[in-house]
Amino acid sequence: MATLIAPSNHSSAEDAEALQKAFKGWGADDKTIIAILGHRNVHQRQQIRKAYEELHQEDLIKRLESEISGDFERAMYRWMLEPADRDAVLANVAIRNGKKDLHVIAEIACVLSAEELLAVRRAYRHRYKRSLEEDLLVGLVSSYRYEGDEINARLAQSEANILHETVKEKKGNYEEAIRILTTRSKTQLVATFNRYRDEHAISISKKLLDNQASDDFYKALHTAIRCINDHKKYYEKVLRNAIKKVGTDEDALSRVVVTRAEKDLRDIKELYYKRNSVHLEDAVAKETSGDYKKFLLTLLGKQD
Amino acid sequence: MATLIAPSNHSSAEDAEALQKAFKGWGADDKTIIAILGHRNVHQRQQIRKAYEELHQEDLIKRLESEISGDFERAMYRWMLEPADRDAVLANVAIRNGKKDLHVIAEIACVLSAEELLAVRRAYRHRYKRSLEEDLLVGLVSSYRYEGDEINARLAQSEANILHETVKEKKGNYEEAIRILTTRSKTQLVATFNRYRDEHAISISKKLLDNQASDDFYKALHTAIRCINDHKKYYEKVLRNAIKKVGTDEDALSRVVVTRAEKDLRDIKELYYKRNSVHLEDAVAKETSGDYKKFLLTLLGKQD
Repeated sequence: MATLIAPSNHSSAEDAEALQKAFKGWGADDKTIIAILGHRNVHQRQQIRKAYEELHQEDLIKRLESEISGDFERAMYRWMLEPADRDAVLANVAIRNGKKDLHVIAEIACVLSAEELLAVRRAYRHRYKRSLEEDLLVGLVSSYRYEGDEINARLAQSEANILHETVKEKKGNYEEAIRILTTRSKTQLVATFNRYRDEHAISISKKLLDNQASDDFYKALHTAIRCINDHKKYYEKVLRNAIKKVGTDEDALSRVVVTRAEKDLRDIKELYYKRNSVHLEDAVAKETSGDYKKFLLTLLGKQD
Repeated sequence: MATLIAPSNHSSAEDAEALQKAFKGWGADDKTIIAILGHRNVHQRQQIRKAYEELHQEDLIKRLESEISGDFERAMYRWMLEPADRDAVLANVAIRNGKKDLHVIAEIACVLSAEELLAVRRAYRHRYKRSLEEDLLVGLVSSYRYEGDEINARLAQSEANILHETVKEKKGNYEEAIRILTTRSKTQLVATFNRYRDEHAISISKKLLDNQASDDFYKALHTAIRCINDHKKYYEKVLRNAIKKVGTDEDALSRVVVTRAEKDLRDIKELYYKRNSVHLEDAVAKETSGDYKKFLLTLLGKQD
């Protein structure tokens, strides 16, 4: 249970007026400030902040900071923030303080519910301008995906709708898209992508390519979706781009050949041939030379 | 399907000898190098590396790097690494290259299975000395925990065993512990902690405190487990430590009072009284002063 004692009826406008009066003169009337703000719940405090801004064209939190000081100011500042924003501030201070405050991060991450934690990440990103693509990549790399084969069709439908919101006209829902991409099983995600295509007559990856190719978040999203949906097709395209690039992209070429030679490079080769009407070995032979060429062709399965 | 053509029978010792010969004289015999290493699977390559090290007291990969060069060397270097270690190198290069290579991170995270990705994180940490506590905290912060109430008793048992391995004598299994803490529902985790206590006659958090209080990873683990297990008890202790500290830890005191006043501070107050036979308000009043004191007492529910 809570300890806060807040009245069920209060007028934000009257509170804002009373606070303004408390700020007047030399030294603020701290007793009134505490009597009001120490007895208002989170919703009421936000209403007062809004009313104060409208009446006095001034941010209440900024004004409080200039009127009070020390531990009182710091506690009041945190109290006035919305909970998710407050936790974002606490997390940021802890990160800046380094090792000695790492337990505060663990505390926030482990006490909050999944939805609350999502709201903190959103607030953190908003406040500290951490990039969305960073959020997405960290989420993808840290994930431990369930690998079962079950599909929840209703979920596929609702999450296809959420992704659609994110993709079309950059409508937001970024955190929701990140949550979906980083937590669902691949089987479930493929069902979601199929649902998207059935509904919008275009695949989500094509849609992404059309609209927002220049934005890093959308680029990372595009790669993630393609890799989850059909990674062989994805690798075929990486090879195609590497080969057709002026000067050849040897890094990308080596990466795909070396990492896939013992897995599914034969399938990728077949896709390459279907798409380009040229054998991958011939394309590679044309663009490379010497030992590098010999090595890649060996890994590509050329008989000596 | 793979493209690699590898013999089912090969002798690592003979391969190591043949490679040594190929390195002799002015300029390496690249044809032989490719003919051998380009036709060995991942297990065989590791065997050859081992045999070479034993025969010649020299790391085969280092020797290859000094014998060959350019794109051939880079591709061969990646080919010779174990897959998880190779992906760790690719991820690190991509991170250092910044924005232009972020798709490589998405690719690794989304193509690999959950277990493979775990192995890459382990290899990355090993190779680049990223700290375990960083892995744990990033995992906790990025998680989106399932919030259902189901308990899988068998899983609780097996994961209690894994945690026991991690906790006792720092036996390792760090990544497994991180995976468990960051992916299971809180209900499931509490069942796992209970299983641990039943089996070892001590709670896992007490056990952690006894053994490894000085290590940052174990400290973060300790906080995470306490917050998941019983966050009110955890906050009671934070308050107790903040108050008894010489000079009082105002940051911790404000943090708990401000963040919990609208949630469960009354329960935490009760726990505090039970544990210390002193009312929390009285302890706070004794250690603070002025407006700060008035404000905290107001949030603590003191009637004006």
